[in-house]
Amino acid sequence: MVYLAEFVGTAILILLGGGVVAGVVLAKSKSENAGWIVVTFGWGMAVAMAVYVTGTTSGAHINPAVTIGLASIGDFEWSLVPGYIASQIAGAFTGAVLVYLAYFAHWKHTDDPDAKLAVFSTAPAVRHPVANFITEVIGTAMLLLGILGIGANSGHISQGEVDLAGLFSTGIAPLLVGLLVLAIGLSLGGPTGYAINPARDLGPRIAHALLPIPGKGSSDWGYAWIPVVAPIVGGVLGAWIWRLAGFAA
Amino acid sequence: MVYLAEFVGTAILILLGGGVVAGVVLAKSKSENAGWIVVTFGWGMAVAMAVYVTGTTSGAHINPAVTIGLASIGDFEWSLVPGYIASQIAGAFTGAVLVYLAYFAHWKHTDDPDAKLAVFSTAPAVRHPVANFITEVIGTAMLLLGILGIGANSGHISQGEVDLAGLFSTGIAPLLVGLLVLAIGLSLGGPTGYAINPARDLGPRIAHALLPIPGKGSSDWGYAWIPVVAPIVGGVLGAWIWRLAGFAA
Amino acid sequence: MVYLAEFVGTAILILLGGGVVAGVVLAKSKSENAGWIVVTFGWGMAVAMAVYVTGTTSGAHINPAVTIGLASIGDFEWSLVPGYIASQIAGAFTGAVLVYLAYFAHWKHTDDPDAKLAVFSTAPAVRHPVANFITEVIGTAMLLLGILGIGANSGHISQGEVDLAGLFSTGIAPLLVGLLVLAIGLSLGGPTGYAINPARDLGPRIAHALLPIPGKGSSDWGYAWIPVVAPIVGGVLGAWIWRLAGFAA
Amino acid sequence: MVYLAEFVGTAILILLGGGVVAGVVLAKSKSENAGWIVVTFGWGMAVAMAVYVTGTTSGAHINPAVTIGLASIGDFEWSLVPGYIASQIAGAFTGAVLVYLAYFAHWKHTDDPDAKLAVFSTAPAVRHPVANFITEVIGTAMLLLGILGIGANSGHISQGEVDLAGLFSTGIAPLLVGLLVLAIGLSLGGPTGYAINPARDLGPRIAHALLPIPGKGSSDWGYAWIPVVAPIVGGVLGAWIWRLAGFAA
Repeated sequence: MVYLAEFVGTAILILLGGGVVAGVVLAKSKSENAGWIVVTFGWGMAVAMAVYVTGTTSGAHINPAVTIGLASIGDFEWSLVPGYIASQIAGAFTGAVLVYLAYFAHWKHTDDPDAKLAVFSTAPAVRHPVANFITEVIGTAMLLLGILGIGANSGHISQGEVDLAGLFSTGIAPLLVGLLVLAIGLSLGGPTGYAINPARDLGPRIAHALLPIPGKGSSDWGYAWIPVVAPIVGGVLGAWIWRLAGFAA
Repeated sequence: MVYLAEFVGTAILILLGGGVVAGVVLAKSKSENAGWIVVTFGWGMAVAMAVYVTGTTSGAHINPAVTIGLASIGDFEWSLVPGYIASQIAGAFTGAVLVYLAYFAHWKHTDDPDAKLAVFSTAPAVRHPVANFITEVIGTAMLLLGILGIGANSGHISQGEVDLAGLFSTGIAPLLVGLLVLAIGLSLGGPTGYAINPARDLGPRIAHALLPIPGKGSSDWGYAWIPVVAPIVGGVLGAWIWRLAGFAA
Repeated sequence: MVYLAEFVGTAILILLGGGVVAGVVLAKSKSENAGWIVVTFGWGMAVAMAVYVTGTTSGAHINPAVTIGLASIGDFEWSLVPGYIASQIAGAFTGAVLVYLAYFAHWKHTDDPDAKLAVFSTAPAVRHPVANFITEVIGTAMLLLGILGIGANSGHISQGEVDLAGLFSTGIAPLLVGLLVLAIGLSLGGPTGYAINPARDLGPRIAHALLPIPGKGSSDWGYAWIPVVAPIVGGVLGAWIWRLAGFAA
Repeated sequence: MVYLAEFVGTAILILLGGGVVAGVVLAKSKSENAGWIVVTFGWGMAVAMAVYVTGTTSGAHINPAVTIGLASIGDFEWSLVPGYIASQIAGAFTGAVLVYLAYFAHWKHTDDPDAKLAVFSTAPAVRHPVANFITEVIGTAMLLLGILGIGANSGHISQGEVDLAGLFSTGIAPLLVGLLVLAIGLSLGGPTGYAINPARDLGPRIAHALLPIPGKGSSDWGYAWIPVVAPIVGGVLGAWIWRLAGFAA
C-alpha cells in the first residue's frame, strides 16, 4: 500500500512538474515562454498536490533523497527504503509518459531537442560537474532541513521521533512543502534546474530514451549521475544538520 | 437551496475565470498580455472564492465532472445530479454575461474574434481531437484525485463516506482546491486551455452565441463536445483511481 | 480605539497598495514595469497585512463599501458608520503621503503625469462612465460576497450574527481576504483598476491634489465620483445577495 | 542553542534570498531576468522557510531590527541582544558564501560588477541618502507592525506579553511572515531593494569584500551604513507604534 502511494505520488509530481516545463518550452503551447515564475510555481504545486493525494498513506516522500535522508538519521526504516525508491522511480517514469500524452500534439512542432529533453530531465546551465554537484547538494540539504522544520512545526516530530504517515499530510503541511520546493526553485534552480530528487530526474530520463518522441536528441546520460548522487549526498547532509543542531529535540 | 448555491458558485467561477481571460486578451485592458501566471492564478482564485461563498451550502462542486465523478463512486446521490448540472450550466452562462458587462467598453476595441471567444470557452492550441481529448481526460482525472485527497486530508472523507457540505468548505480546503486548479492550469493547460469542467465551457459558449458582442466570430461548436465529454470521462476515471487505490479507506 | 484601527489599517492598505503601483510605474524603480501580477499581488498582500495588524481591534473594514454593506444588512451598527468612514479616508490620505515619501527620489525622474496620478487613484482604461460604473459595482459586490463567505467559513457568522472583531481576524481569514482582492484584481481590474473602495480612491486623490509632486498633472476630479459611488452600490448589492441567498443562515 | 538557531536561520535567509537575486542577475542562469515577482517571492519564501526551520528554537528573529525593536518595547531581553545580532551577522555571512558556491560557475560569465554586488547587498535605485534612509525606515516599521500583528493574531501576544519561542513558529504564522516580506518587497522595494535588516545587508557585504569573485567591483561601503542604521530606526518605530496604538493590549 505504501509503495502504491509512493508510485502514484511520484507520478503526480512528474505529471504536473514535467507538464509545466512542457507547457513553457514546447512550441504552440498556450503557456509557451511563460517564464520562471510559472515553472517554479508549477513544480511547487506539483509537490503539494502529490502530497495531498498520497501523504496520509505513505508520508509522500516521492523522492529517494528524502527517504534515504530520513533513514540516515533513524527516522525511517531501512527495510522499506528499496521498495520506496523503486516505486518512486517507476512512478516518475509513468508520470513522464503521461506528460508525453498530455502534450502529444506539440512534440512535432518543436524543433529544439534540448527543449524536449528539458521536459523530462534536468541539464546544467553551465556544464561544470563540480559546481553542478555542489549546487544540487546545497539544494537538497535545504529541502531536508525545510521538510524536517515543517514537520516539527506541525507537531509531527518530537524527541526525534517522526510520525511517518502524518509527517507531511495534515492541513497546511503539504502546501508548505510545496512552497519549500518553490523557494528552492526560485533561489537555487538557476544553475542546474534543481533536480534535488534522483527519481524525478532518472525516471523521466529513461522515459525520454524509450518514448517515440519526434525529433528527440540525446538523453545526456553523461550528466545523469549528478542529479542522482548529489541529491542523496545533500539529503543525508541536510538531515544530519537538522539532527545535530537539535532544533526540535 | 443547494441548486441556488451551485448556480451562484459557478457564476462566480466564470465571472472571475472568464474575467481574467478578458483582462489578458481584450484590447486596452490594464492587464492586457499579462501572461500565463495571471491567467492561472485568476482561475485558481476564482475556484477558491466560489467555494468559500457556496461550499458550506452545496459542497461547491461547480463542475459536472466533479458531481458525476463523486456519484460514480457512490459519494454523491444520483438523484441530485441533474439539478446540480443544470444549475452549474445556468450559473456559468450567467457568469459569462457578467464578464460581458464588466468588460463592456473593451469588446469594440478588440479586433481578433478568437480572442473574444477565448474569454468564454476553451480552444485547442493545436487542433487534434484525440490528443485534445486525452489532455482533458488527464487534467480532469487529476482534478478529482486532488479534490478527494484534499477532502480526505481535511478529515471530510473517511471509510469512503464523504461529508457533502463540508467537503471543500472548511478553513483552508477551498484555497487548496483553488491551488489544485492553479497547478492543473500551470502544468496541463498548455494544449487545450484546461476546460476540465463541462459547465465552464458550455455555459459561456452559449452566452457567446447569444450575446451581442461587436465583431464576434464563430462559437466553434465543432470543438464544443470535447470539453464536455472528456472532463466527464476524466472525472469518473480520477474518482475510480482514488477509490481503487484506497488511499483513505 | 476602533477608529484608530481603521485609520492605521487603511493607511497600511494604501502604503502597500499605492506603493506597489509606484514601484511599477515610476521611473528608475527596481520594480519598474514589473507587470500586473506584481500589482495584483501587491494589493492583495496589502489588504492581508492591514487586516492582520488591525483586524482584532476593529474588524478591519478599511473600506466604506464594506462598512456600509454590512450595515445595510444589519450586521454593523449604523452609529459607527460615520466614524469608520472618516477614519478610513484619513488613513488612506496618510498612507498616500507615506508612499510619496517612500518613493521621494523617483517623482522628478518620471515624465508621465498620468503615471503619477495612478500611484494615488484609479483611472479607467477606456473612459465610459456607464461601463466603468458597472465594472466597479460588479467588483465590489464580489468583494462583499467573498468577505461574507470567508467570514461564514471561519465560523464568525452564524444565524445572521456577525462577530465584528473576529470577522476577518483569525488565523488564515485575513490572508483569504487578501487573496479575494487578488482575485478581483486579476479578473476584474482590467477596465477600471479596481478601486472597489471609496476611501482607497478618494483619500489618495486628495493627497495627490495637495502634495508638492514635481510635474504632476490633473487629479481627474471628473472621474472621482465613480470609484466612490459605484463601490457603495456594489457593496450593498453584494451584502444583500448574500443575505437573500441565505447561504449561511 | 538560540544563537545557533539565529545563525542557521539567517544563513537560510541569505542562501535563498541572495540565491534568488543571483539567479535573476547572473549570466546564463536559467532564471536570468525572471523579473521582480521572482525576486520578491524568493525573498518571501526565504523568510518563511528560515522561520519554519528555526522558529521553534529561537523565535527566528533573523534580523537585528526585529531583535532590537522587540527589546525596545520590553518584549525581548536586552541581555540576549548582542548574541542574537552577532549570530545573525555571522549567519548572513555564511549564507552569502553558500550562494557564492551554489552559483560558482556563473560569476565569470557575468560582466557587470554591480550585478555581482546586488547578489550580496542592496543598492539604491536613485542615490539620495535622505530619501533612501526614509524608505528603509518606512519598510522596517511596516515589518515590525506586521510581525506583531501576525503574532497577536496567532495568539502569541496578549497583554503585551510575547511568547518568544512561539511567536512566529506555529502552523501558518511563519508563512504569513514570509508573505509580509513579500508585501514589503512588492510595494516598498523599488527605491532601495528593501534591506530592512542590518544583518541581511552587512554580512553578505563583508562576504563580497572577502570572497575571490571574478571581476568583482567595489563593495560600496559608502552606502553600507544606511541599510544598517535605517532598519534599526524603523524597527524601533514600528514596535512603538504597535505598543502605543495598543491594538492587542
